[in-house]
Amino acid sequence: MTARRHLLGLEGLPRTELEQLLSRAHEYREGRVGGRHLSGRVVANVFYEPSTRTRSSFEVAAAGLGAHVLNWTVTGSSASKGETLVDTAKNIAALGVSVIIVRHQHSGAAALVARSVGCSVINAGDGQHEHPSQGLLDAYTLWRRWGGVLENKRVAIVGDILHSRVARSNLHALKALGVKLVFCGPPTLLPSHLSQLGVDVTTELDVALNGADAVMMLRIQKERASEALFPSAAEYHQRWGLTTARAAALKPEAVVLHPGPVNRGLELSPEVADGQRSLILEQVENGIAVRKAVLEAVS
Amino acid sequence: MTARRHLLGLEGLPRTELEQLLSRAHEYREGRVGGRHLSGRVVANVFYEPSTRTRSSFEVAAAGLGAHVLNWTVTGSSASKGETLVDTAKNIAALGVSVIIVRHQHSGAAALVARSVGCSVINAGDGQHEHPSQGLLDAYTLWRRWGGVLENKRVAIVGDILHSRVARSNLHALKALGVKLVFCGPPTLLPSHLSQLGVDVTTELDVALNGADAVMMLRIQKERASEALFPSAAEYHQRWGLTTARAAALKPEAVVLHPGPVNRGLELSPEVADGQRSLILEQVENGIAVRKAVLEAVS
Amino acid sequence: MTARRHLLGLEGLPRTELEQLLSRAHEYREGRVGGRHLSGRVVANVFYEPSTRTRSSFEVAAAGLGAHVLNWTVTGSSASKGETLVDTAKNIAALGVSVIIVRHQHSGAAALVARSVGCSVINAGDGQHEHPSQGLLDAYTLWRRWGGVLENKRVAIVGDILHSRVARSNLHALKALGVKLVFCGPPTLLPSHLSQLGVDVTTELDVALNGADAVMMLRIQKERASEALFPSAAEYHQRWGLTTARAAALKPEAVVLHPGPVNRGLELSPEVADGQRSLILEQVENGIAVRKAVLEAVS
Repeated sequence: MTARRHLLGLEGLPRTELEQLLSRAHEYREGRVGGRHLSGRVVANVFYEPSTRTRSSFEVAAAGLGAHVLNWTVTGSSASKGETLVDTAKNIAALGVSVIIVRHQHSGAAALVARSVGCSVINAGDGQHEHPSQGLLDAYTLWRRWGGVLENKRVAIVGDILHSRVARSNLHALKALGVKLVFCGPPTLLPSHLSQLGVDVTTELDVALNGADAVMMLRIQKERASEALFPSAAEYHQRWGLTTARAAALKPEAVVLHPGPVNRGLELSPEVADGQRSLILEQVENGIAVRKAVLEAVS
Repeated sequence: MTARRHLLGLEGLPRTELEQLLSRAHEYREGRVGGRHLSGRVVANVFYEPSTRTRSSFEVAAAGLGAHVLNWTVTGSSASKGETLVDTAKNIAALGVSVIIVRHQHSGAAALVARSVGCSVINAGDGQHEHPSQGLLDAYTLWRRWGGVLENKRVAIVGDILHSRVARSNLHALKALGVKLVFCGPPTLLPSHLSQLGVDVTTELDVALNGADAVMMLRIQKERASEALFPSAAEYHQRWGLTTARAAALKPEAVVLHPGPVNRGLELSPEVADGQRSLILEQVENGIAVRKAVLEAVS
Repeated sequence: MTARRHLLGLEGLPRTELEQLLSRAHEYREGRVGGRHLSGRVVANVFYEPSTRTRSSFEVAAAGLGAHVLNWTVTGSSASKGETLVDTAKNIAALGVSVIIVRHQHSGAAALVARSVGCSVINAGDGQHEHPSQGLLDAYTLWRRWGGVLENKRVAIVGDILHSRVARSNLHALKALGVKLVFCGPPTLLPSHLSQLGVDVTTELDVALNGADAVMMLRIQKERASEALFPSAAEYHQRWGLTTARAAALKPEAVVLHPGPVNRGLELSPEVADGQRSLILEQVENGIAVRKAVLEAVS
C-alpha cells in the first residue's frame, strides 16, 4: 500500500505489508472481525471487461463492510458516448466515491486512474500487467492451507505466462513470501526475461510438477490458438494440461489452484478441477475476506 | 419446500405448505410483519433471460428483508467467456450467497443448480417447466380476493399452455388448493396429456369462460405464429383473446389475471387489461409479499 | 414541485420554490443535514438512454438518504419484449417504489409516466424537452460560487440550443432567478422563437462571451454534423468552441460549466475543460446534494 493508499500491483510491496494483509484477511475469514468499517461510504466497481468473480467478490466484500456499491459498466454508460477513461474516472470520483475498483484492457490503466483522481484506487486487472487482489487471494489460500508457512514451498505456475496478469501478481507476492517458483508453458507463451527474475522456467510440465506443493493452472484464452501461439486445444491439453494422470503423480498433499473461469478439458481435466486437490472454490470464498482486508487498507 | 430448502417447483408441494406460504405472504402484505430476517445475508439474482418483474420483485423483497442483492446477468459476465451454468452457480455460491434465484431457458436448470451448490435455490422460471413464485403469487392474489377460500372456485387458464411454465405452476398450486381448472387454447398449444391430470380442457374459449370465477390469460410469444402454431395475431385475438365483449359476458364478480408483460390486443384487449376486473397490477404488488415469504421459508 | 410532488421540468416553477431547493441542496452540500429520510423506501432508476453521471448521481443521492435503489435499463428487461413505457412504469410502481426517476428519448415521457402511476416521478431527461435536476445543479453551482446572488449576472449558453434539454431547463431556472441570459450557436441550432422569451440570441460567440460571468458550453452530438447542421468538427470548434484564446479573454472571475461528457477539442479545448475557470467536476459533486434535495422534496 503506498502513502496515497492505492493497490495497483504487488510488485515491490514489502513482505511485511503482504503479511499484514494476509493476517487481516484471515481475521475476516475466521469471522473474528465484523465491523462495518465502510458504513456510509460509496465504493465503485468500474469494469471495462466482463467479470463475474472479481466484480461480485468486491461487491459482496464492500457491502459486507457497510458500503454502498455503485456498479459501472461500459454498456449503458457515457463511455458509449466516447468519454475517456480519465474523464469517466474523474466524474465517478466527483460523486463522492471513496474507492474506485477498476478493470481495464490496457496495462497501466489503474495507475492512470490513480494519478487522475483524489480517491483510492484498486486495480482489478489491467491488461497484461497485474491483478493484485487475485495474487493476494491465491497467496492467502496457500497461506491458510499451509498454516501460515510459505517459505521454501514449491509452486508451479503453468500456462500462458506471457499474457497473464494473474501470473505477474502471483510472481511478486509469492516470491516476496519466500516461495520457490517454477513457471511452465509453451515456449511461445513464456516471457524471455523470466529467468532473470530468480525463478525456474521450463517448457516441460513434468519437470515443473516434480516436487510441487501447489500447482496454479492459468486460464488459456482460446483465441491464442488462432494466433498460432500453440497448436491445438487437444495438443495443449496433452502437453501442458493438468490431466488426471499427471495430477495423480503429484505429491499426496499437493493442491491445485485456478483463477477461473476454468476451460474444462483444456488446461485442467474436469476430474482434477472438481477433485480432492482442487482449491478452486476455496479461492473464491477466500476472495471475499482478502478483498475486505484490501478495501479496509486503502480506505 | 423440501428439507434442503429450495423452491424448484410447486408440483407435489403439500396443500398445508402452500397454505402456510399464502398465510405468511398475507402477513407481509398487510404489514403485520416487518422484520429484516435476511440482514447481513446476500441474495443473488442469476438471470439468463430478460426480466423486469421477477428480477425486480425478488430484489425489492430481499432488500426489504435486509439482504444485499447481487444482480448477475449473462451480459458482462464470465458466461460470455463460455462458463457453464453449474460452474457459474458454484462460484456465486462460493461468494457466501445464502440464496440463488435462477432463471434459465432450459427446463431443469434450477434443479441442476440446487444439486450443485450448498445454498438455497429458488426457481425464477426454467424453460417450459415451472415458475413457482409466479404460481404462488397468482394463487395468493385469488386467495386474497376471495377471502382465503379457493375450494370449488372455477378458474380458466387460456393461451399457450404447451410452452407455459406459468401454466404448469398454476396447475399444481391451484389444483392442490381445490380449484376447478379449465385449460383452453388452440389445439396446437394444448399438451395432449392435460386431460389425464383431472382438469377440463377445451379449445373453445366461450366454453372455458362459462361460469369462470377467474380467467388467467397467458402471454403469447409472437414468434410462435411463425412456427405455424396459430394462424395470425388477429385471428388469435378473435378466437382465444379476452375481448371486451367476452369480458362483459363473464360473471359480474369474475376477475382477470395475466403474468405480464401483456400483448395488448393479442391475448387481452386494452380495455380489459386496464378495466375493473383486472388484477394484473395487484399481482405485481402481491409478488413482493409472496417473495418475502418464499425467501424467508428457504433461508 | 406540483401538488402531486413530481419534478417534470423547471418551466413555471416559482422563484421561491427554486430558492428553497437551492438552499436545501446547500445544507446537504455543507453537511448540515445527514438524515436518512428515505430509509426503507425504494427509488427506481428507469433509464431508456445511456447515462453515467445522472443515473449514478441519483443512485448515490438516494442511497445516501437510506433508500434502496432499483436500477432498470432497457437491456435485459421486459422492454426488450415490446412492453410500452406506461406498462413498464406501472409495473415498477406496483413493486412499491416511492420515486421513479425516468430518462427517455421522447419529450413528454416523464409527464406521461407521472399521469400513469401513483408514485412520485422525477424527469432525468426527456427527449429535447427538459432535464430539471441538471438545470438545478447548474443553478446551484453558480449560486454557490456567487454567494447566493444570481440577480443580474450574465450567463452565456453556447452550442446546440435547438436539441438541448439542458439548455431548456437552464433557461427556465436561471431566468426565474434573475440571470441575464444570452444564447449562442450556429443559426441552424438556434430555435427561432428564442428571442421572444426575453433572452439575448446571437450567432457570434465573441458577442455572447463579452461581459459574461459564466459560460455554459453544451455537448455537441457529433451525429448532427452528418445532418448538415454544422460544417465540421474543426470549423465548429473554431467558430463556436471555447478555445484557450477565447477563455483567456473572459472576465478574470468568469467560470465555465459543461453538463458532460465533454467532447474535448470540439465544444471545449482540453486546457479550458481542465483549467482554473472550469467548474465541471464541481457540477458533478454538487449534483449529489441537489438530487438529495429533489428526492426529499418529492417524497
